[in-house]
Amino acid sequence: MVEKTFIKPTILPGFMELLPRDQVIFNKMLDSIRESFELCGFLPLDTPVLEKADILLAKSGKEAEKQIYTFKKGDSEMALRFDFTVPLARYVSQRYNELSFPFKRYQIGKVFRGERPQKGRFREFYQCDVDIIDKDSLAPIYDAEIVATAYTTFERLNLGSFLIKINNRKLLTGYIEKLGLNKKTKEILREIDKVQKIGEEMVAKDFEKMGVNINQTEKILDFINSAGSVADVLKKLKSLNVANDTFDEGVKEIEDLVKNIGYMNIPKSCWTIDLSIARGLDYYTGTIFEIVLTEYPEFGSICGGGRYNNLAEYFSDKKLPGTGISIGLTRLFDLLKENNLLKYTDRQTLKVLVIPLGDYTNLAYDLVANLRKSNIQADVLYTGEGLKKKLSIASKSGVRFVAIIGEDEVKNKRITVKDMETGEQNSVPAGDIVSFVTKS
Amino acid sequence: MVEKTFIKPTILPGFMELLPRDQVIFNKMLDSIRESFELCGFLPLDTPVLEKADILLAKSGKEAEKQIYTFKKGDSEMALRFDFTVPLARYVSQRYNELSFPFKRYQIGKVFRGERPQKGRFREFYQCDVDIIDKDSLAPIYDAEIVATAYTTFERLNLGSFLIKINNRKLLTGYIEKLGLNKKTKEILREIDKVQKIGEEMVAKDFEKMGVNINQTEKILDFINSAGSVADVLKKLKSLNVANDTFDEGVKEIEDLVKNIGYMNIPKSCWTIDLSIARGLDYYTGTIFEIVLTEYPEFGSICGGGRYNNLAEYFSDKKLPGTGISIGLTRLFDLLKENNLLKYTDRQTLKVLVIPLGDYTNLAYDLVANLRKSNIQADVLYTGEGLKKKLSIASKSGVRFVAIIGEDEVKNKRITVKDMETGEQNSVPAGDIVSFVTKS
Repeated sequence: MVEKTFIKPTILPGFMELLPRDQVIFNKMLDSIRESFELCGFLPLDTPVLEKADILLAKSGKEAEKQIYTFKKGDSEMALRFDFTVPLARYVSQRYNELSFPFKRYQIGKVFRGERPQKGRFREFYQCDVDIIDKDSLAPIYDAEIVATAYTTFERLNLGSFLIKINNRKLLTGYIEKLGLNKKTKEILREIDKVQKIGEEMVAKDFEKMGVNINQTEKILDFINSAGSVADVLKKLKSLNVANDTFDEGVKEIEDLVKNIGYMNIPKSCWTIDLSIARGLDYYTGTIFEIVLTEYPEFGSICGGGRYNNLAEYFSDKKLPGTGISIGLTRLFDLLKENNLLKYTDRQTLKVLVIPLGDYTNLAYDLVANLRKSNIQADVLYTGEGLKKKLSIASKSGVRFVAIIGEDEVKNKRITVKDMETGEQNSVPAGDIVSFVTKS
Repeated sequence: MVEKTFIKPTILPGFMELLPRDQVIFNKMLDSIRESFELCGFLPLDTPVLEKADILLAKSGKEAEKQIYTFKKGDSEMALRFDFTVPLARYVSQRYNELSFPFKRYQIGKVFRGERPQKGRFREFYQCDVDIIDKDSLAPIYDAEIVATAYTTFERLNLGSFLIKINNRKLLTGYIEKLGLNKKTKEILREIDKVQKIGEEMVAKDFEKMGVNINQTEKILDFINSAGSVADVLKKLKSLNVANDTFDEGVKEIEDLVKNIGYMNIPKSCWTIDLSIARGLDYYTGTIFEIVLTEYPEFGSICGGGRYNNLAEYFSDKKLPGTGISIGLTRLFDLLKENNLLKYTDRQTLKVLVIPLGDYTNLAYDLVANLRKSNIQADVLYTGEGLKKKLSIASKSGVRFVAIIGEDEVKNKRITVKDMETGEQNSVPAGDIVSFVTKS
């Protein structure tokens, strides 16, 4: 006798896959983000998951290239998208004459990175991006629009208080220039980005190795630690008398941004200037953003972005400045789940479960068809022997109402409706079910 | 002087990428399908795009294998999912103990097939699937539930009248058995699937080559052409006196299905028995479905599915029967677009565009913040010189209302609201804008 062998059902490490009750919450977060982006006037875009490899590799350095999934099929060298910025650059260059500018678009979907899987790092994850792109120059107000969009999005996501941290690349680079360290700008920015994770002492040691002297290190650390109100920080920036053009431009831009944010009806408690945020990417040229959940600083930055001078330099001679932010939803969801912060009260997709006690399939479906027609999620429960068992199945499913059809109910043309949240039970005329569950 | 060279911004052939105005309509169709699936009690599932190659290849034959994108990264042989059925089989086997059965799930997303790109064939496309899986045996009523779900979905998609065609694999296979052709069942079914495309004459020729004699060919063609009302077809099936167990089972099952569909409140004009539908896949074992748009028969089948005995035979010794349908949305959307059937009246995402005539950024954003807080999509228009140009930009954007803030408006604390659909213009108190645009 030959025994049948099975392939062990597993997925690759570094990929997130949820049970339905978690998926429902994940989808609600996705929907909430999308609604916020649309409320703020962004248009949807959905670029292919697979693109020509030379397009996706155009911009990336060696380090990034290692992370990109590439393969050959037929004559085509293909790659899986690893972000939405490169596809956006390609799209705007390709469709330049068909788009209206400023082009405000959002894209929500999966991106792929062949990283070594480790806790909190995913090889396939959802990114939720908004960007505003214009021709030749982009008005400063759009950076404030991005702050307003971030505010709207996180306010509606309902994850507790959050802080939008704002900085300007030109401040740090100007200050580094002033200290005579301009040849090391990239490395220094990358170190500053690590302060939160590894601490100032380690960063100071790294600085030493890089040939930054103690005096310079102290000045940099003092600079990025400038705390206080927005007005305090702006005052300090001026009092430093840095006398460097890049720095001065940065001051002017951040003052402008502060003024524009003032127009946006954003509570003062939701945003601040933080001179310590640096953003790893070379890509940003002016304003930069990072968002943290105030109650969960250990989550680190849950959203980041900024302004860039030129989106599409590899694809077009057109100058396309832009500004935007990106939320890494898979990582954020994973953190919320790990910390037991998912709101399982939100988990119901189903509103009414009809339980026919006996051969009332016909009546059960009359009710279900009626509910569905009124946009109420409804289904019939067949499984389980006896009412008690059936109610227990219904309870586990997370449904809000149970509608029981039995002999008595049929005789009296009324249906017993049980609210699974409150335990309350009512006898409702069959024709009134829709309005009963709608108003509850 | 070195001239800068650019990479030509293009995408791979066989991939669909839309402009925002089409993307908005595509997303509305996706949303509508998802809402319908949830109305009918299906839970969301989102399996990874990338899975282990041996999992995705477990079931596929040589022909299918050629179409699957596979590649190696590090030690992992990976593949891109080419449908949702294999991932579902893997998922249900893997999470068997954590799921409640019958497990009703939907999955909507992109799947990938390395086909030779040609008109109407995509290498990356959206599939929208619902399936109901149970342990050991699945009650017959669930096939009717799938019909009800298909009805709800296409009714709400609003693509004109549609017809859900129903058949049962056992009828055809039983009849073929009876004719003594059981060794050729697969090939014969595949030929029958082609009748719509290549015509009966061609199919008859193919039958001849396969060694089916003229008498048998005539009988098969007569059988699949059985037309008439559901009652007529059922009557004919019985009058044939086939006396074959498989056939008799098929008759019993389709009679049962007809009875169950009768419970579902589905108009009689929306479904029928069609003995000519065969479905290419070996996979189906009982009921099979296909849906056509009555006004556009040339679109062919826009949705198909059926019942299968065992979902996960490669991954588990558990018996998991199921039933389901799948909509190939990318192809359907492409057909609608090609035939100018997209409803561009649906294209607005933005409801209100605020036009400040002068330095009224502050007031403009007060209004926008207020609208967004009330879930109304709103934005500020900065571009364009002069009101005329600005109104033309607004009109092109497809926005419903324009709110103009000028000197007069500020003085009188009223805002001029123009309905871009009707051309009507009203002077509305600033505080009443939300209710004004909501009730319009």
